[in-house]
Amino acid sequence: MVLFADRLTARVHELRCPVVAGLDPRADLLSAAQRRRAGGSVRQTAQAYVDFAQGFLDGLVGVVPAVKIQIAFYEALGLPGMHAYVRSIRAARDRGLIVIGDIKRGDIGTTAEAYASGHLGQVTTNARYDVDAVTLNPYLGVDSVQPFLTDAFRHKGAFALVRTSNKSARELQDLTCDGKPLFEHVAARVVEWGRDRVGTCGYSSLGAVVGATYPAELARIRSLHPGLLLLIPGYGAQGGGARDVVAALDEHGGGALIASSRGLMVGYREAADAGRPPDLGVRVLAEKMRDEIHAAWLEYRRNPRS
Amino acid sequence: MVLFADRLTARVHELRCPVVAGLDPRADLLSAAQRRRAGGSVRQTAQAYVDFAQGFLDGLVGVVPAVKIQIAFYEALGLPGMHAYVRSIRAARDRGLIVIGDIKRGDIGTTAEAYASGHLGQVTTNARYDVDAVTLNPYLGVDSVQPFLTDAFRHKGAFALVRTSNKSARELQDLTCDGKPLFEHVAARVVEWGRDRVGTCGYSSLGAVVGATYPAELARIRSLHPGLLLLIPGYGAQGGGARDVVAALDEHGGGALIASSRGLMVGYREAADAGRPPDLGVRVLAEKMRDEIHAAWLEYRRNPRS
Repeated sequence: MVLFADRLTARVHELRCPVVAGLDPRADLLSAAQRRRAGGSVRQTAQAYVDFAQGFLDGLVGVVPAVKIQIAFYEALGLPGMHAYVRSIRAARDRGLIVIGDIKRGDIGTTAEAYASGHLGQVTTNARYDVDAVTLNPYLGVDSVQPFLTDAFRHKGAFALVRTSNKSARELQDLTCDGKPLFEHVAARVVEWGRDRVGTCGYSSLGAVVGATYPAELARIRSLHPGLLLLIPGYGAQGGGARDVVAALDEHGGGALIASSRGLMVGYREAADAGRPPDLGVRVLAEKMRDEIHAAWLEYRRNPRS
Repeated sequence: MVLFADRLTARVHELRCPVVAGLDPRADLLSAAQRRRAGGSVRQTAQAYVDFAQGFLDGLVGVVPAVKIQIAFYEALGLPGMHAYVRSIRAARDRGLIVIGDIKRGDIGTTAEAYASGHLGQVTTNARYDVDAVTLNPYLGVDSVQPFLTDAFRHKGAFALVRTSNKSARELQDLTCDGKPLFEHVAARVVEWGRDRVGTCGYSSLGAVVGATYPAELARIRSLHPGLLLLIPGYGAQGGGARDVVAALDEHGGGALIASSRGLMVGYREAADAGRPPDLGVRVLAEKMRDEIHAAWLEYRRNPRS
């Protein structure tokens, strides 16, 4: 069975693209026509999210290896929303995309086992989620991560939050604990927790989330843990640039996934509202992001200290 | 509009009971008859959880002020599970119980807003959750808590994880940061974040989760923050005893909620499997827990240093 890290890395190399497209459906990102329909009811909003997801994902096929789907926007709509989440996951899988469920769960014991079985477990009915990997919150320690790393989920992956992209990330994550910032302790734990899930690519299927918006912290984590697979949100709309993230990529252009949500999703609305195919609007932006990162990466490999 | 902290405190005093019953439906806690039915399909398991919830909640009416419902066990069942979660919340509200959604969410920006609107927002269809309070993970800082404290949710509450009850809690939460453990920093932030939501009872509607399984840490947080409303899991099955938790109660017997899940839920199965009404099995255990805590609290107030 191919480990998640190996499967993902192979796909990144095939496409020569470390971009993960973030699917965070929100009313303001829908096309004007979808927004009108979504105004009707929760059920219609959920249907609009699925329509949006399908067009968005169409634009990503053959360009990006993976999509990160934010469950919160679906969960906020209650049951019709959860149904739309399941349908969006299925739409991504049908298009050959690797799916990361951005769920940021963190709980213990049988509760953590329940989350793991629900989100990573095989679909036996139409009801469960069956993503390839999830994001996790590590505040409760290894108890909250271990159930996602059991043999039952050997081919699945997870990314633990280490240094997040938001403004108040520094409030707790940067506290100096025994001589170094808390996030460095967390990063070291994540490496330790994921040690027996390292693939032939050299990375573990337990990776870390580190925001693009804090280049110094990102560079620090990369220098401390060259073998830690990173998921890097905050590119584009949140302020992270290509030069900030390419230092996290290895000499083959892998080892890190650069995520953009809003920056790619806007392509859908702009194209749709102008009467153009929305998937092409997304594709143009995804290819542009891929090429920007590739150019910055080549430049960085030529001259790392510039 | 009555603040959550005031509503909860009034109910604790009315019932002279600081017990929160934890509803964590799991196959091994169902009655034999329910387990047989639950084996059939995910949908039947979800229905068994609702049956279990109804009997369990029946046993709590007039005894405990609140119930804490663990979403993970429902979420693990996919869509039928989420429907059962909504039905269990409604069953609790119908019985006059205050409902805490144990969701431990933690995210930022529009994502955190989505979680807040989904879980605390008013039910406009059959689809959303509409609990009185939720649990939150604070690792991302105030960005992940603020959306739950907006004016739209002025009558709602939240409890942020501070020092959890599990074994690996100490891994990160006990790290010494700038001279004191991380969990003390988190507790101080929670007090600060909840400052403008303090009710006439003296407590804020933003409280803290502190496990009963670590009496020293619990006592430390209480001594540092006498005005911090505490939600204390880990009583009973997880190992916390009455003597460990009563120091967290104030001179009126309020200020802390002592949660027990497994310790109360077993009353259901044992009664049902013996052919007795399961709600009475639960009621007996809830009254016993209430009385144990009351006796230990009286003893503690008479002689705090014993």
